[in-house]
Amino acid sequence: MIRLFTNATILTMKEGEPLLSEASMLIKGDRIVWVGTGSPPEAEVDKIVDMKDRLLLPGWINTHNHAAMTLLRGYADDLPLQTWLQKYMWPLEARFQARQVRAGTRLAVVEMIRGGTTCFADMYDYMDEVAQVVADSGIRARLCRGVIGLVSEQERQSKLNEAVQFVRDWNGKADGRITTMLAPHAAYTCPPAYIEQIVEQAEILDQPIHTHLSETAAEVEQNVNEYGCRPVEHLDRLGVFQRPTLVAHAVHVNEEEIALLAARSVKISHNPGSNLKLGSGIAPIPAMFRHGLTPSLGTDGAASNNNLDLLGEIQLAALIHKGANQDPEAVPAEQALAMGTRFGAEALFLSDEIGTLEAGKKADFISVDTSVPHMQPAHDLVSHLVYAAGASDVQDVYVDGHPLMRNRHLLTLDEEKIRWEAQRAFEMIAPSE
Amino acid sequence: MIRLFTNATILTMKEGEPLLSEASMLIKGDRIVWVGTGSPPEAEVDKIVDMKDRLLLPGWINTHNHAAMTLLRGYADDLPLQTWLQKYMWPLEARFQARQVRAGTRLAVVEMIRGGTTCFADMYDYMDEVAQVVADSGIRARLCRGVIGLVSEQERQSKLNEAVQFVRDWNGKADGRITTMLAPHAAYTCPPAYIEQIVEQAEILDQPIHTHLSETAAEVEQNVNEYGCRPVEHLDRLGVFQRPTLVAHAVHVNEEEIALLAARSVKISHNPGSNLKLGSGIAPIPAMFRHGLTPSLGTDGAASNNNLDLLGEIQLAALIHKGANQDPEAVPAEQALAMGTRFGAEALFLSDEIGTLEAGKKADFISVDTSVPHMQPAHDLVSHLVYAAGASDVQDVYVDGHPLMRNRHLLTLDEEKIRWEAQRAFEMIAPSE
Repeated sequence: MIRLFTNATILTMKEGEPLLSEASMLIKGDRIVWVGTGSPPEAEVDKIVDMKDRLLLPGWINTHNHAAMTLLRGYADDLPLQTWLQKYMWPLEARFQARQVRAGTRLAVVEMIRGGTTCFADMYDYMDEVAQVVADSGIRARLCRGVIGLVSEQERQSKLNEAVQFVRDWNGKADGRITTMLAPHAAYTCPPAYIEQIVEQAEILDQPIHTHLSETAAEVEQNVNEYGCRPVEHLDRLGVFQRPTLVAHAVHVNEEEIALLAARSVKISHNPGSNLKLGSGIAPIPAMFRHGLTPSLGTDGAASNNNLDLLGEIQLAALIHKGANQDPEAVPAEQALAMGTRFGAEALFLSDEIGTLEAGKKADFISVDTSVPHMQPAHDLVSHLVYAAGASDVQDVYVDGHPLMRNRHLLTLDEEKIRWEAQRAFEMIAPSE
Repeated sequence: MIRLFTNATILTMKEGEPLLSEASMLIKGDRIVWVGTGSPPEAEVDKIVDMKDRLLLPGWINTHNHAAMTLLRGYADDLPLQTWLQKYMWPLEARFQARQVRAGTRLAVVEMIRGGTTCFADMYDYMDEVAQVVADSGIRARLCRGVIGLVSEQERQSKLNEAVQFVRDWNGKADGRITTMLAPHAAYTCPPAYIEQIVEQAEILDQPIHTHLSETAAEVEQNVNEYGCRPVEHLDRLGVFQRPTLVAHAVHVNEEEIALLAARSVKISHNPGSNLKLGSGIAPIPAMFRHGLTPSLGTDGAASNNNLDLLGEIQLAALIHKGANQDPEAVPAEQALAMGTRFGAEALFLSDEIGTLEAGKKADFISVDTSVPHMQPAHDLVSHLVYAAGASDVQDVYVDGHPLMRNRHLLTLDEEKIRWEAQRAFEMIAPSE
């Protein structure tokens, strides 16, 4: 099927390309054939879609999530990190079974599509369930079974086998919408030998690595006490950065560590909402940009955010570094948008396929209603999108050329049923009050 | 007219009152008669409104705004403060006439109502226009003509006369929805003798004072150089705090100054979005609470925010102080909600009338749709509202018992016409590119 989206304003997110007015995009099947102003190339178009008052741009890419934790949204807030984890999160997560992961992930995918996210990274357990939700919903994802090594040697091997089997079963599935990674949870939850073993498997399977890095000051201190160096050096010594690697958080990294991350081309998932809410701190994003890194954005799980609104993260990224550094030029609007799109594709090692709107790439895109009052006067749409818009301004969401939402109506998921099932699955594990 | 809103979840925002489930609210004319669970008092009810899946709570109170500046939304961003002011804002504001103020304020009020704001403070010029928009739209406002004293003595007197006349003309008008203040713009824009003159007029007219305070580090430094003390002490010496006073920003105030502000019962308007975006810094809100202050929230003008979404400010207030202080217990959800409601009423010296839902107060309230996916599982609605909801979840807005928005349809303003007029008014003054 060949479709022409016309009469639109288009933000391709190609580096340096300005906003295109009265522009069109030609899609053939799952790929973009042409984007531009003026007449599109001759083609037997099956459908013309009028995009008046709509801004078309690449869908958001959420590079760190634990989607199933959406089931624990609002279950515990405003608590010290260890109390939150030990008293609330871990006991409930221990009760998670396939049903909870399925219900939580479905709810998460509903919310992500409604907010304009077309691709997300996910690290959790019961990943077959997560992959099935991705396959069914039409969204794109880079998935990994997160392994925590603070268990018996036998359990460690069994978890790693599971992670490896997940890669074998799902990498490239759902018309290529599903790709995978290997994921040692963090330096503080995986013994060094276990991390080395995971790196070895990643080499054999040709997989990237995804891990948590230096989220809190306490974690860095613990690493120094235990291993005599900070986490970046520790992971580097263990050979992790020999593989393409995506690290989440990187809040407590110093100038030297940032330089090393840049030298190793490590990808960063900045999670401002979660880092603020848990009191972890504010990651040194401007310093990372100075060193040539291109941080992407993630929501983290909804238990610590508490939503999966990637535009909200774009907005936080554009605001908090200006305030924290008393520098109104830190993270300008265009850069914040790139963090949510093009840099996100790089972070997931998918930039050949997604992250910009250009010929040859997958047709993963969204439309935003620019006629709303909070985007008037119609002056600078990039500014309005970053500093004034909201998730609910997203109208249409396409992945692989398929519409997942049109005019805010979901097309692949039964929202009411999913809401009901999430409530049931939560109540099954929540302690009665 | 007597109306009963039933089947609701109600958050009265009275201190310490929990969320009321299956609750009702009885309204007679412009006032609340009763709020609670169980049977409402006997009354000849004219209309029963079913509020299933709706959370009722007091409308947001935006305690610092320059509504007309909405016309300059997105006109200039990501620039150093002085460039932003001198090259972009001031030249365009100099071209503002009544038409621009009317168009910008109308657009602002559309956006505020749509986001659930029922009362706002405004400091600007051409205030008769602003007051007329408030009167026509049905919203509530505390208005003041902001005076900048860096002009000739004659102009200073003429501006002050205007400000005084505005109070005489409008205070208590529109069924009491309009109240007023006097507003020396800031210590750095008004000579000391001028400020003293304004205080004198405020005493004669029995008016509160509204001013900008210590928004930037440079402003504090300038005050020290010019007057030998920091701005809080300076304003205190000039007798400002002898009047009920509301100060906007208070970003750069030290422990001693916070103690003095608390001793003088000064009201604070915290503007996190604007302070972040302009790179001004992060106000010491947790320290203010420790000293017994109860900071409220403002958006500031949309030229530096860039929207008028007070729920967004509530969310920023709940997040950034946790991150900046690495303390997940800073500004908990309930406190952030109080900043946007009850403390806002205190800041505008209107807490006898608004800020909570209780018998005797004005019927200024909003409803929020709690059935949306990003507020599931239905567990802790206060948490969901602060950490997960968006402005577009607000469904109904009532002021003085009158509906201004129902199911997201505006009832008192012609949105399409206002959008068109704002675009025209902006283009009349914008330099051609």
